[in-house]
Amino acid sequence: MTSDTSTVQGYDPRTGDPAGDPVPQTTPRAVAHIAVAAADAFDAWRETDRTTRAAALEAVADALDANVAELVALADRETALGETRLTGEVARTTGQLRLFASVLRDGGYRDIVVEHAEAPRPDLRRIARPVGPVAVFSASNFPFAFSVAGGDTASALAAGCPVVVKAHEAHPRTSLRTAMIVAEALDSAGAPEGVFAIVFGFEAGIALVQHPAIAAVGFTGSARGGLALAKLCAERPKPIPFYGELGSVNPVFVLPGAAQARPEEIARGYAASLTLGVGQFCTNPGLLFVPADGERLLEEISAAVAETTGGPMLAQRIHDGFVAGAQELAARPEVRTLAEGKPGDGPWSATPVVYSVTAEDYLRSATELREEHFGPLGLVITYTFGSGPDPFNLLDVGALGDGQLTASIHLDPGDEADITFGRTLADRLTGIAGRIVFNGWPTGVAVTHAQHHGGPFPATTSPAHTSVGAAAIRRWLVPVVYQDCPAQLLPGDLADGAL
Amino acid sequence: MTSDTSTVQGYDPRTGDPAGDPVPQTTPRAVAHIAVAAADAFDAWRETDRTTRAAALEAVADALDANVAELVALADRETALGETRLTGEVARTTGQLRLFASVLRDGGYRDIVVEHAEAPRPDLRRIARPVGPVAVFSASNFPFAFSVAGGDTASALAAGCPVVVKAHEAHPRTSLRTAMIVAEALDSAGAPEGVFAIVFGFEAGIALVQHPAIAAVGFTGSARGGLALAKLCAERPKPIPFYGELGSVNPVFVLPGAAQARPEEIARGYAASLTLGVGQFCTNPGLLFVPADGERLLEEISAAVAETTGGPMLAQRIHDGFVAGAQELAARPEVRTLAEGKPGDGPWSATPVVYSVTAEDYLRSATELREEHFGPLGLVITYTFGSGPDPFNLLDVGALGDGQLTASIHLDPGDEADITFGRTLADRLTGIAGRIVFNGWPTGVAVTHAQHHGGPFPATTSPAHTSVGAAAIRRWLVPVVYQDCPAQLLPGDLADGAL
Repeated sequence: MTSDTSTVQGYDPRTGDPAGDPVPQTTPRAVAHIAVAAADAFDAWRETDRTTRAAALEAVADALDANVAELVALADRETALGETRLTGEVARTTGQLRLFASVLRDGGYRDIVVEHAEAPRPDLRRIARPVGPVAVFSASNFPFAFSVAGGDTASALAAGCPVVVKAHEAHPRTSLRTAMIVAEALDSAGAPEGVFAIVFGFEAGIALVQHPAIAAVGFTGSARGGLALAKLCAERPKPIPFYGELGSVNPVFVLPGAAQARPEEIARGYAASLTLGVGQFCTNPGLLFVPADGERLLEEISAAVAETTGGPMLAQRIHDGFVAGAQELAARPEVRTLAEGKPGDGPWSATPVVYSVTAEDYLRSATELREEHFGPLGLVITYTFGSGPDPFNLLDVGALGDGQLTASIHLDPGDEADITFGRTLADRLTGIAGRIVFNGWPTGVAVTHAQHHGGPFPATTSPAHTSVGAAAIRRWLVPVVYQDCPAQLLPGDLADGAL
Repeated sequence: MTSDTSTVQGYDPRTGDPAGDPVPQTTPRAVAHIAVAAADAFDAWRETDRTTRAAALEAVADALDANVAELVALADRETALGETRLTGEVARTTGQLRLFASVLRDGGYRDIVVEHAEAPRPDLRRIARPVGPVAVFSASNFPFAFSVAGGDTASALAAGCPVVVKAHEAHPRTSLRTAMIVAEALDSAGAPEGVFAIVFGFEAGIALVQHPAIAAVGFTGSARGGLALAKLCAERPKPIPFYGELGSVNPVFVLPGAAQARPEEIARGYAASLTLGVGQFCTNPGLLFVPADGERLLEEISAAVAETTGGPMLAQRIHDGFVAGAQELAARPEVRTLAEGKPGDGPWSATPVVYSVTAEDYLRSATELREEHFGPLGLVITYTFGSGPDPFNLLDVGALGDGQLTASIHLDPGDEADITFGRTLADRLTGIAGRIVFNGWPTGVAVTHAQHHGGPFPATTSPAHTSVGAAAIRRWLVPVVYQDCPAQLLPGDLADGAL
């Protein structure tokens, strides 16, 4: 089956065996058809009243909820993420759809500004307009929330953009079934034909981003894949925006006061966050900075990690990459193994592992040592906390990387030194990460209005934008201003009585 | 002088002679120094209270106003744009600085969203943060408003970003003097050293966008120059956003009712807009669609254009490019000369000229015929208005190009056919242009809150952003969210009592 390039075959990560029938790849010709149909649907969809679009998104959410058991079973077979997690993820996904329905009803996303004429200034009325058909590339690690009916799809449909999803090859049958449910629900809600479609296969993805009808791309995945697609977008005759989330190692700093005050709580939280979903999260805490003299904390970390158990990874490629990366890291002379969890079952299982290195050694090779390992692998950096504001240059970009989705600080609010250094640290981290977490862990991203899931390159390719939360809709909107437009021709939203 | 690559020499467009002493080019080493100084100034400037930053912008505006006579004299010698226009442009420039001061005092630009904890959701507080030091590339055609102290500089300084300006080679002495005034005013207002600087020369511009300290680039100029810089930005080890405004031909449609109702007014308006500033505006109306049977309008256009007079262009290169482009267009068999203005004085003078072509011929070669000619050159396309919604496919992207800064419609509000077709046309144009002008002309861009000066590629490289008006500040901001931040560490703007 693996050698058949005309189909996409899902596998059961628990056994390595094929999971269900393969799904046919979409031919370039079919992709072109689908893209043109999306373009044809654009006018009708963007002109659909926003409350009707909201109702259509809610219909999709309801349909997914109604089929949750079937979807979870399909996804569990293809991802092995487990029923509890997957059931929660469907709820998160339908919650996202309903959030964007509420964003539509609120209407603030249109960013309307009306200025009546005041000589010599003309009458100017600005409104945001959907950019056009959007290509959405699904992620491996969220078969629902960052996949066919995930945040990119929900926010783009809300904006008034048709969506063509490129399914992730790790869960084709989940993707196909989800797409059928989405398409049926949209159709029943009166959405125009062509407003939503799915394509399968690597070549189909390439054809999609290169098709002239596609106006923007949303992507969640590897840096290598993302940068290749970004290049294709930039080199089109008409370049289009590429919103890519490419990876992050999410540094966590444990300040001395916190290390002393609550070592067990921090160790347990760390082990749980590191191994959640077999470590397959973009917000996985890859780097943990702890005081070198915090022996109690290091002991607690060893104990907590030892109690964790591995599990099957999403795909063989991901598993093999993880194992190779871990071996490479372990082979470095300055790196020692701090703790290991128990192995999981099955051929693609990853065992949680935490390495450690001194800050001095880390800083010598930070670029290599802070490479992302997608999976349950952590690097603990032991630092000596001096008297200056940054005694070991840990705040340097060289230590932390240019861009991260998150950075976290554990501090003791009652400890003067923690607060003083924490303030400096937090301020510096705002230049490196899109979200600063205090006394918590980066995994778990609330889907709300205030959320920002993004960060400087390479965390994302467009640091001003988020892929999670209400503001994600901004990626799919462009402004247009009407100057001295006669009342008869003004769009309803811009009429004098509309606001 | 022209062969001396170590200096930038300005010229008097009225004579072609050198205008004042040359200005030394900035060496790559000096550029590096300046970029590092900008990075060093970043923390102090972004932490400066926003009302203090507002006062600093107003101090710059006051200082420019106080030196208006000297600045206008310098600029007139290097650009020949005339005292009236240049005096107005200084006022526009200082108006922009004051607008951004008011944007700072208002504070809405920070896009603050505060969500208190509500289990299981954490406390999340988002705020926009300046992106870092910004490189600003000045335009040739606005020696003040899109130059050293122009909209890009004003909006970036307002955002909290240090600015390094690359001076345009067409007006080095104006740039140098403006920069001295800006730097002195900022210094007197207490702004940190290094927050503003200027560099001269092509190589200096390259070194600037490649320097690691630069976080974003603003550019107004040619498509060729802009695309080359965009590529440099994308290919940096850490890519940075490039906000480029690259050119536009700004189609104008005269619908049959309007052509009949007010031919003289339209003809006069067109001739004035086409020749304003010797046609050297990004919003110059390059394409005018008129009814083939509107003979009266065509006659009035000929008469109005015949009354115009040419003038010296900004630079020899611009003049030579204009003349060559006009000759190429005139040599095409399907193109005829509709009208010519009177020649201006001096070696770099351009004579206004309007060509015409039938819609049928135009559509056959639209890609070549709609190329931008920077200068007082118009192409009139005569169309036959049939009964369908778009009888001659004029609404196709092929006819109008992918992206325009503006598109304009002249219609008679009392004419049913004008209104009906105008509605379809306006709606379609929102996908092509960032501003739709009704019964007016695209030149003249109000600097306000509702304004949007941008458009799909190639008009701009980032169609969601504007380079004119209050929203221009958004280009220099990225969000950051604080999760469960202890009260002692929250930035003042995000404290519970601050909103």
